[in-house]
Amino acid sequence: MGTVYLVGAGPGAADLLTVRAARLLARAEVVFHDALVEADVLALAAGAEKIAVGKRCGAHSSSQRFINKRLVDAAARYETVVRLKGGDPMLFGRAQEEIDALVAAGIDVEIVPGVTAALAAAADLRVSLTRRGVARSVAFVTPRVGEGEAPHAWARAAASADTAVVYMGAGQAADVVAALVAHGKPLATPVTVIENAGRAQSRHAAGRLQDLPALAAERGRGPALIVVGEIAAATAATSLAPRQALRTGT
Amino acid sequence: MGTVYLVGAGPGAADLLTVRAARLLARAEVVFHDALVEADVLALAAGAEKIAVGKRCGAHSSSQRFINKRLVDAAARYETVVRLKGGDPMLFGRAQEEIDALVAAGIDVEIVPGVTAALAAAADLRVSLTRRGVARSVAFVTPRVGEGEAPHAWARAAASADTAVVYMGAGQAADVVAALVAHGKPLATPVTVIENAGRAQSRHAAGRLQDLPALAAERGRGPALIVVGEIAAATAATSLAPRQALRTGT
Repeated sequence: MGTVYLVGAGPGAADLLTVRAARLLARAEVVFHDALVEADVLALAAGAEKIAVGKRCGAHSSSQRFINKRLVDAAARYETVVRLKGGDPMLFGRAQEEIDALVAAGIDVEIVPGVTAALAAAADLRVSLTRRGVARSVAFVTPRVGEGEAPHAWARAAASADTAVVYMGAGQAADVVAALVAHGKPLATPVTVIENAGRAQSRHAAGRLQDLPALAAERGRGPALIVVGEIAAATAATSLAPRQALRTGT
Repeated sequence: MGTVYLVGAGPGAADLLTVRAARLLARAEVVFHDALVEADVLALAAGAEKIAVGKRCGAHSSSQRFINKRLVDAAARYETVVRLKGGDPMLFGRAQEEIDALVAAGIDVEIVPGVTAALAAAADLRVSLTRRGVARSVAFVTPRVGEGEAPHAWARAAASADTAVVYMGAGQAADVVAALVAHGKPLATPVTVIENAGRAQSRHAAGRLQDLPALAAERGRGPALIVVGEIAAATAATSLAPRQALRTGT
């Protein structure tokens, strides 16, 4: 029986994986990856069969149960099976369902953490998510909920935190505004929408919570995050274009 | 004028830095690092002068203003200056003060994100911080506040989130319990204290919020995190000793 490694692919650029993740990909025999994982990252698994499973945003995704079964089956055939997830596997990645299925089947599981998109966004924006006297708490949330879950349950934590980062929310910006306002965030709260954080094509637009639908329409096409809170007020001033030389270094 | 890179050192193990961070350390001329950064990580900066600045937990830390000045001075003398911070630089790292000082001095700043300790903890515990139907929001907080800040302001976000990870809180566990309970968290909420997350010596203890002072006394000696929420209930069952072979791989 092989080992299944749930590995964080990081935010996009192939040099924002951890060294451990890159080494595991180099010796993987098979890699099951999210549809959003970049080709440059997959190229690190030169000797592996690569199988796309799942899709972050909706249609045509493999069912989770089918993914679990494929991972269990692969562990019977291969020594080193990698399940590669965008960002970090333990945030919004349905990792627990895969871990539980593997453990139930008696298969060894290892997790390799990754850089989550919110931290890549902070880096691109050159704005710290915490700041003395301004922001001491940070919430990561997603408005995408499963069947039977309360639609706005995420908003209480987001509205209570000094800084909130909303994953996978740009496609429902008006609903995000409504939920945050209902939980007490002022419409004048600074927000920044950033698309492709951690990639060469990282771009953002800054404004106020009341502007979020317009900002999301401008910058919400690729994988996008919404940063909400006073610290977002500084993004217009401090953020610069990413350095191409660094991002594409080999 | 050189460039100052604020670089995430990750949670501890030298292979949990990003590839980009490791490459920057290899070509750095000088590295200003937190006291908590591991020797194995610093060894990646083979050709650099290494200067310890700051200390996460209190006494004898260099004043922030003095650190800012040293970074500005170093950029006048060196091409590649690395400011190496534990975990990710943009979470609880006072990065903004350093960025602002460097930008004000006309110095180029780049941020390289890192794996934050909470995600290394989730990996070690094999417990996802989010889980469908159980946990859809995550808060990262610290009870360590600066002068003039409200002492329990952090607790509202932590109590509102399905999962909370408390950084640098094990040393004031009784106060953490009091603040969370005052903001509505039941005393029976599952908690896990994990020390040295992301390192070979990672160890944890699980219980209920009411047990936190005892758990923190047992597992709060090294750098420690407190994980609060229903997802923590599974840590007793799913967590195993880290695999030495993987963690020390070269």
